[in-house]
Amino acid sequence: MAAFSRLVRFLARDGRTYYGDAILPRGVTDIAQARQARIVQGDIFGRHNVTDRVADIRLLLAPLAPEDVRTVRCLGLNYAAHARESKMPIPEYPIVFYKPATALSGPTDPIPVHPIAQQGTGLDYECELVAVIGKPCADVSEARALDYVLGYAVGNDVSHRDWQIRRGGGQWSLGKGFDGWAPYGPGIVSTSLIADPQALRIGTRLNGKQVQQASTADMIFGVRKTIAFLSQGTTLMPGDLIFTGTPQGVGMGMNPQVWLKDGDVVEVELEGVGTCTNKVEFGTTRDHKL
Amino acid sequence: MAAFSRLVRFLARDGRTYYGDAILPRGVTDIAQARQARIVQGDIFGRHNVTDRVADIRLLLAPLAPEDVRTVRCLGLNYAAHARESKMPIPEYPIVFYKPATALSGPTDPIPVHPIAQQGTGLDYECELVAVIGKPCADVSEARALDYVLGYAVGNDVSHRDWQIRRGGGQWSLGKGFDGWAPYGPGIVSTSLIADPQALRIGTRLNGKQVQQASTADMIFGVRKTIAFLSQGTTLMPGDLIFTGTPQGVGMGMNPQVWLKDGDVVEVELEGVGTCTNKVEFGTTRDHKL
Repeated sequence: MAAFSRLVRFLARDGRTYYGDAILPRGVTDIAQARQARIVQGDIFGRHNVTDRVADIRLLLAPLAPEDVRTVRCLGLNYAAHARESKMPIPEYPIVFYKPATALSGPTDPIPVHPIAQQGTGLDYECELVAVIGKPCADVSEARALDYVLGYAVGNDVSHRDWQIRRGGGQWSLGKGFDGWAPYGPGIVSTSLIADPQALRIGTRLNGKQVQQASTADMIFGVRKTIAFLSQGTTLMPGDLIFTGTPQGVGMGMNPQVWLKDGDVVEVELEGVGTCTNKVEFGTTRDHKL
Repeated sequence: MAAFSRLVRFLARDGRTYYGDAILPRGVTDIAQARQARIVQGDIFGRHNVTDRVADIRLLLAPLAPEDVRTVRCLGLNYAAHARESKMPIPEYPIVFYKPATALSGPTDPIPVHPIAQQGTGLDYECELVAVIGKPCADVSEARALDYVLGYAVGNDVSHRDWQIRRGGGQWSLGKGFDGWAPYGPGIVSTSLIADPQALRIGTRLNGKQVQQASTADMIFGVRKTIAFLSQGTTLMPGDLIFTGTPQGVGMGMNPQVWLKDGDVVEVELEGVGTCTNKVEFGTTRDHKL
C-alpha cells in the first residue's frame, strides 16, 4: 500500500523536482489547487515514506517521472453511449491500443499540434480515468485486481479522427500517439482514498462549456475487469498506465461535429482527483525539432 | 556512430550479463553462432567503447537490456504480397501498432502460449527486420533517417489471428502483445556493416521447412520512409524498436491455413544478422504467475 494519499510530481520553489504528497486546503478536493506538498522519499512503487518536509509547488508535472513510466494502454469504446455516438458496436472484449510514453505530458502543459495533425479534420478530446499499476501483475482475478493499482489520475486521450480511423489503416494508435497527446494528472490518488473507481463523476469542459459529463459507473469494462482481462498472458508492470476509455460527448459525436482549434482550452476532470487544463497549440515543424 | 559492429547481450561463463561485440569465426555471418565477444563498456546509445577483454558466451539474450528499451512499434501489411495474402488493401500510409516491452524476448527463448491464446485458432509467425533507434529523432528527412538508427536485428512478430483480428475489436495489439511474443536478436548489426537495409534476404523456417522467403527490397515503406513518417510529430527515442512488417508466407495465408502448435520450432533469419530460433510452448496459467 502506498504511503501517500495524493502523489504529485512538481517543480518546487527551489528549482528542483520532487515527488510529494499534495496538501489540500480545507474544502478543496482538486489536486490542481495544491500549493504545497510533503516530500516523498524512496521508490514510489516500493519502499517510500512521506517526510515532514513541506515544499512549495511552483508547477505540477506529469505525476510519474518519464523513467518511471512503462507501457501506456488505452481502451476504446468502453462506455456504451460513446460506442453509440461513434456508430460502433458494443465490444465483446476490451478493445486495446497503445500510446508511446512520449505522448504523456503534465496537467497544465499545452497540447502541441504538429502540422501533420493540422491536416484533415478531427482533432478531438477524450476525458478518461487513468489507472496506474503499482506492482507486477499477471493472471489476477477481478477480486484481487485493485490490489495491483497504485492509484488513479484523470487523462485526456487526445485524438485526430482522420489519422486514427481513416489514414491509420484502421489501427488507432497513430492518430492518438503524437508528442504531448496524453496529458494526465494532476496527481495520483491512492486506492486508500478511492475504494471504488466505478462511482466517480467524469467530464470535460471546452473553453469553459461542459461537453462531456458522465459517471465511471457507465464503463462497460470497469477497472477490475479490465486489469483481470489484460493481465491474462501479459504481465502488467509498475508504472504501466491504463486509460480506461471516454464517455459520450466527444466532438466527433456532435451534430455538427466540433473539432479542436488552435488556442482552445480543454479541461478534463475526475471526481476526487481533480482537473487537467491544457491549451491546444498549433505548432510548426521547427518547433518540434530536438 | 556506434563503436561496435555486432552488439550482443549475453550471459557469460562467469555468470554475469554483458554487452559485447560478437566475434564471428571466419566464414560465419550468423550472430547466433558467436561463442565469444569483446565486452562493451559505457552507454550503448552514447559514449561507449569496445574493450580488449574477450568473454565466452554461455547464452545470447535479447540484445537490449529491458531498462534500455523504450517503445516497440510495428508495421502491418508492409509487403505487398503479404497484404494480398491477408486479403487487405495496400496501405496508403504505414499502418502502426504497438507491442509492450514485456513481449520482447531473446533469440533462443521459448514462445510461451498462455491458455487464453490457446483458445480459438490462429497462432502464427512473422519474420521481420527490426530497426533499433539510437538517437532522439523528430521530423527527420528520408535522406537523414538512417543516421538515427543504431542497427538492425531480426524479430518474430508472433500473432494470434483470432485475438488480433476478430476478438480485438479490430485493434491488432491485443493478439500480438502477450509475454514473450516478440523474440528478437540474435544481436544488433551496426549501420556501418549494413549500409542498405532494403537489400537483405529475410525468411522463416517452421520445423526446418522454409515457409517465408523474401527480400527487404519488397517493403512498401522502407526503413528510411518509415522513420521519416513516424517521426512527424512523434519523437522516436533511443531504445525504440521498429518491427517493419512481414513478407508473404505466414500460416494465415496458406491453403489450408497452418497454425503453430505446442513444440513447433520457428526460425526467423535476416541476411547479415542471423537467426532467432524459438520453440512454441503451450503453458498453464500457473506457469505465468509472478
